[in-house]
Amino acid sequence: MSPGGIFVWEMLGTSVLVLLGTGVVANNVLRSTNGNGTGFLFVTIGWAFAVFAGASIADPTGAHINPAVTLGLAIADKTAWGDVPYYFAGQMVGGILGAVLCWLTYKLQFDKHPEPQNTLGIFSTAPQIPSKVWNFVTEVIGTFVLVAWILLSPVVSGGSDGVPEFGNSALGYAGVAFVVLVIGTSLGGPTGYAINPVRDLGPRIAYAFILPIRGKGDANWGYAWVPVFGPLAGGSLAALLYLAVHNLT
Amino acid sequence: MSPGGIFVWEMLGTSVLVLLGTGVVANNVLRSTNGNGTGFLFVTIGWAFAVFAGASIADPTGAHINPAVTLGLAIADKTAWGDVPYYFAGQMVGGILGAVLCWLTYKLQFDKHPEPQNTLGIFSTAPQIPSKVWNFVTEVIGTFVLVAWILLSPVVSGGSDGVPEFGNSALGYAGVAFVVLVIGTSLGGPTGYAINPVRDLGPRIAYAFILPIRGKGDANWGYAWVPVFGPLAGGSLAALLYLAVHNLT
Amino acid sequence: MSPGGIFVWEMLGTSVLVLLGTGVVANNVLRSTNGNGTGFLFVTIGWAFAVFAGASIADPTGAHINPAVTLGLAIADKTAWGDVPYYFAGQMVGGILGAVLCWLTYKLQFDKHPEPQNTLGIFSTAPQIPSKVWNFVTEVIGTFVLVAWILLSPVVSGGSDGVPEFGNSALGYAGVAFVVLVIGTSLGGPTGYAINPVRDLGPRIAYAFILPIRGKGDANWGYAWVPVFGPLAGGSLAALLYLAVHNLT
Amino acid sequence: MSPGGIFVWEMLGTSVLVLLGTGVVANNVLRSTNGNGTGFLFVTIGWAFAVFAGASIADPTGAHINPAVTLGLAIADKTAWGDVPYYFAGQMVGGILGAVLCWLTYKLQFDKHPEPQNTLGIFSTAPQIPSKVWNFVTEVIGTFVLVAWILLSPVVSGGSDGVPEFGNSALGYAGVAFVVLVIGTSLGGPTGYAINPVRDLGPRIAYAFILPIRGKGDANWGYAWVPVFGPLAGGSLAALLYLAVHNLT
Repeated sequence: MSPGGIFVWEMLGTSVLVLLGTGVVANNVLRSTNGNGTGFLFVTIGWAFAVFAGASIADPTGAHINPAVTLGLAIADKTAWGDVPYYFAGQMVGGILGAVLCWLTYKLQFDKHPEPQNTLGIFSTAPQIPSKVWNFVTEVIGTFVLVAWILLSPVVSGGSDGVPEFGNSALGYAGVAFVVLVIGTSLGGPTGYAINPVRDLGPRIAYAFILPIRGKGDANWGYAWVPVFGPLAGGSLAALLYLAVHNLT
Repeated sequence: MSPGGIFVWEMLGTSVLVLLGTGVVANNVLRSTNGNGTGFLFVTIGWAFAVFAGASIADPTGAHINPAVTLGLAIADKTAWGDVPYYFAGQMVGGILGAVLCWLTYKLQFDKHPEPQNTLGIFSTAPQIPSKVWNFVTEVIGTFVLVAWILLSPVVSGGSDGVPEFGNSALGYAGVAFVVLVIGTSLGGPTGYAINPVRDLGPRIAYAFILPIRGKGDANWGYAWVPVFGPLAGGSLAALLYLAVHNLT
Repeated sequence: MSPGGIFVWEMLGTSVLVLLGTGVVANNVLRSTNGNGTGFLFVTIGWAFAVFAGASIADPTGAHINPAVTLGLAIADKTAWGDVPYYFAGQMVGGILGAVLCWLTYKLQFDKHPEPQNTLGIFSTAPQIPSKVWNFVTEVIGTFVLVAWILLSPVVSGGSDGVPEFGNSALGYAGVAFVVLVIGTSLGGPTGYAINPVRDLGPRIAYAFILPIRGKGDANWGYAWVPVFGPLAGGSLAALLYLAVHNLT
Repeated sequence: MSPGGIFVWEMLGTSVLVLLGTGVVANNVLRSTNGNGTGFLFVTIGWAFAVFAGASIADPTGAHINPAVTLGLAIADKTAWGDVPYYFAGQMVGGILGAVLCWLTYKLQFDKHPEPQNTLGIFSTAPQIPSKVWNFVTEVIGTFVLVAWILLSPVVSGGSDGVPEFGNSALGYAGVAFVVLVIGTSLGGPTGYAINPVRDLGPRIAYAFILPIRGKGDANWGYAWVPVFGPLAGGSLAALLYLAVHNLT
């Protein structure tokens, strides 16, 4: 795939991922929506199938739509290091674009929301209890499970050769959606499970610098590095586990 | 497929879609049901698998059951323009028929519902906040995601040739159901996600002109064009994206 | 398959179906359970995957586990009429056995339930609003959708020849589960969607004549024919539709 | 597969299973989480897809991740008795490791939880009503359904030869997840459905002897044998049923 192709497909997939992922939180949080207050199960189901939709669109580039996945695959020698910048760029632009589309979808609701200063959580994650160290650990574990599953499970790899390949079918993408669902239900309690740097940083940039939300609050930049570097560390550790297991067994 | 075949299969599939889709809202809204007040996650799950059931029945005609899908596929040169009227006719009749079947299913509940003037929402969508422009935008974005996924995802297209084909299996139809689920959870907050002209207009016609619901309200014709033309515009834009991406990469 | 084989596999599959289906209602209704009061979405999900488990166990006999399916397939000329009695017998015994297993699972809860006279609803369906005619119509429509889907969808039939065959994979059984889920969410509001005569009559017999539930109520025999003959009528109508469509297109 | 390979893969799969399974309960129970109080449907969905993730990772060893499955397969002559100790050892270590990872994920929440003496339920099951006999029966029935399904269903066995084999795809693992989901919704009411000895005993050991949870309660060792021997008995009975059916039909 050409660098331009990588950029375009990853941007498309990531923008759909972030549109649908931030959208379910908007639906849950904002007043005057059909989904207001539906709850956390609703949010985890929305994010899970946001991954399904976004990943299956980005099929031509291997459906990374997440820099932690790209980095893990590069460490595991399954993505060329020279392609990594084009993946990252497409993902980052997609993350910002998805957030803008979410805002357009809920424009009327943003305009009338009684607490506009508390809308950052629609776009980016925030910890329930402050502590950069432990929230970093939580993001590492969540992303470790995601990337380890992608590398080790035959659902993705297609069998004995171990090459990640979703197999051009709903099966692999449904599998990823199920894993993201359970990471949400089970590991999403403390931090809101970014497990994807651009899913957090892209919308945070859109919130801070692009979206004209009346009375919006600050973008909490002090926490912003945790959902970026925690996932990157978790994805890297999963790749190291993969290499170790591959050599041992 | 003959024009008559297109009409019959699309009518069957769309009537099952609309019966099951309007049915879950009836179950949620009407008193004296098992599902009364279950909530929006329940409604989105119902509509998602209503699409699964209806689409898999309409398999012989490519499972459009939605004029926005038919229009998008025609623009993308995957459905013959000469067949489009037969698709539209079957879908429209199916939309009306499904609404009638829903009313028959919940006849006792309609008779006893304490607020019969507020039953239009079982059949057709309504915006949470009035504004034709922004609700139109919301419907465009939701349908864009649906049709772009159908055109771009290998789950439907079956691979490199790009011909939409669900592959005669549960896989493609489950994939469509998952995408409709997440469009509901994530983009359904402002307007109730028609994303299908006949899913909205068919039941609205049934409500206004056919169903003898005691004390029913008006059919809100002033809004009725938004869930018709918004989805058609969204499906068309998705087809243009598909053509652009197809030429670029 | 020998008559004995039909009996054994249908009995096994139906007993698992009814154990898991009545079990989710017991969990939702009885006090001192983990699931008490979880709600109707919970119940519909439980019944849907009860069908998945039971049907995939009864795979050797075509996974009917429902006399309305057996009758529909016989009318559609896909099951030999001579085998029908063995199907019915296995299903009926399985329905009773499943209810007994449910009672054993929840023995402590039945013993302590404060309203033991209101426990019939765990085992058998009851209408929200009395009216044998309209509740019969509701059961006809629900079962019609189920059997029409089985006969018409390629998910089950495996393609052009139209022979119902789940294909020895999770796909077909997941598809049936999704359809039962949406019949529950969407058509289950008025009557609790028996859509299967033995799922209702088997547990009703167990409740009335076998289970030593302290202080149990009566078995509501006046309503018992509706969830038996409504599903049989719905399945038959679906088979007639199938034959008509098969001849027309 | 070498003994070391069995140990490593079963340990990896079981640790992911237990991390994600205990994690969803932690999210539901602990204060200051996103999932606090979401309810039992949330918990059953989390455990179901925890099985999906863990089982698909343990694919190289047949994805047992449960001594009751290993024992049932050994009785049914599908796993060599000589391999059983390595399966058990990997599963047990994985069960402990998963619980430690759950604690690390929710470290901040454990530190601030107002009732730390009531945190055993995050890790291990407890009955709603005391009675070792009947809770044992409940665990037997739940595990019987799980192992009978694995042995009898073509979703796992891949067809006529009856060799359990998930087929290196998402299908079999999704099927197991669906069955665990419905066992939870339908049979999980009285005891919290251990249906897996190490899923209960591993975390109980971690809770009692390893995890430094401030103010933690006792590990309820008096009940601990029920969720160990109930599942082993249920899995054995399912294997006997399988052998009987195999010989009869």
